[in-house]
Amino acid sequence: MATDAQQACFEAGIKFGALYHQFAGTPVSPASAPSLETAIEESIRNQPFCEGVAVDIKTERLDVEHGYTELTGEYMDVELRIDYEGTTVAAEMAMDDGYPLMRLAEIDP
Amino acid sequence: MATDAQQACFEAGIKFGALYHQFAGTPVSPASAPSLETAIEESIRNQPFCEGVAVDIKTERLDVEHGYTELTGEYMDVELRIDYEGTTVAAEMAMDDGYPLMRLAEIDP
Amino acid sequence: MATDAQQACFEAGIKFGALYHQFAGTPVSPASAPSLETAIEESIRNQPFCEGVAVDIKTERLDVEHGYTELTGEYMDVELRIDYEGTTVAAEMAMDDGYPLMRLAEIDP
Amino acid sequence: MATDAQQACFEAGIKFGALYHQFAGTPVSPASAPSLETAIEESIRNQPFCEGVAVDIKTERLDVEHGYTELTGEYMDVELRIDYEGTTVAAEMAMDDGYPLMRLAEIDP
Repeated sequence: MATDAQQACFEAGIKFGALYHQFAGTPVSPASAPSLETAIEESIRNQPFCEGVAVDIKTERLDVEHGYTELTGEYMDVELRIDYEGTTVAAEMAMDDGYPLMRLAEIDP
Repeated sequence: MATDAQQACFEAGIKFGALYHQFAGTPVSPASAPSLETAIEESIRNQPFCEGVAVDIKTERLDVEHGYTELTGEYMDVELRIDYEGTTVAAEMAMDDGYPLMRLAEIDP
Repeated sequence: MATDAQQACFEAGIKFGALYHQFAGTPVSPASAPSLETAIEESIRNQPFCEGVAVDIKTERLDVEHGYTELTGEYMDVELRIDYEGTTVAAEMAMDDGYPLMRLAEIDP
Repeated sequence: MATDAQQACFEAGIKFGALYHQFAGTPVSPASAPSLETAIEESIRNQPFCEGVAVDIKTERLDVEHGYTELTGEYMDVELRIDYEGTTVAAEMAMDDGYPLMRLAEIDP
């Protein structure tokens, strides 16, 4: 009943919600950020229809007063790509006015 | 660029991914299931465009050999409703062949 | 090999780590805070040797610019009580100089 | 008031609870298990008094019928070491009769 593009958008949303709420709260420091980026990318990539995930933890923004902090949307940018039966969706998460905004960037076709 | 229906599907996906990965792993018993259902519903309901969430923890399926178990998709059915600029989406999560399948149930219009 | 008091302290730590990292990131608003407090208390109470958990979400501190925020240690105080073979431990979590400090409050005997 | 050994046991418990409830539910496959092991080790290592963490995801136990599964205690063994003011604690998590048992292995002195 849903179109392939609607399904692809649904799947993109699932990946963002999963990624964010699975990893929010993880202790992270500039030194441990690279391994966390890789683990997030590879774990979410396991999910159905997910063709690519790129996570960029903004280590320069991390509060290191106590040596580490907890991961929140404030500290990461994410791009992901879904392929659902030939329809591809690119979606992004980035800070927008103090809120980690998830948005659809491209739907094809 | 995305249609309202595609946006609504994206938002539905975000809520499912968030709900699942935020609460998977929570210790749950038949006695504590009702308060967990309510908390999941009310927390996800906070998110943008979310008009309704219904969580049903299948207490009869909980393994109570150790008194409690950890919440997984195996133990809950979820229904949610999104309203994005007048387009509504109903989506469901339920077990399907051993896998907690999230699916779009209705998109209107 | 460990004493009962050491075991009780270990169990208190497990509960704090579990509580914090299970629920950090949960969407929360002043309206949904009470159900989340109850769900956290009842879920952690399921764990072995846990005799009591009290969670106080500081709703007056919640950033409600976007209608809700995500739960972090900044927004909650927690008290819990462990009974391990007759040795009781009381432990607390509260903000201390910008850090959600978990500490042992009383060990008896 | 607490002894250094009790404090060290408390800290060991915090790390186990944090590790388990932060990462339970993460999508994992045999291919992505190594990066997840590393990320878990490095993230928990950030926490105070933590001197070492070793995570072994039992890839041979992963259910790969759907290509991946969600991490639970069933699939990982963990060892960690705490140093609190010169008192060291070694602790372990492993499956015990169907339950992921966390236990104190050594306290010195």
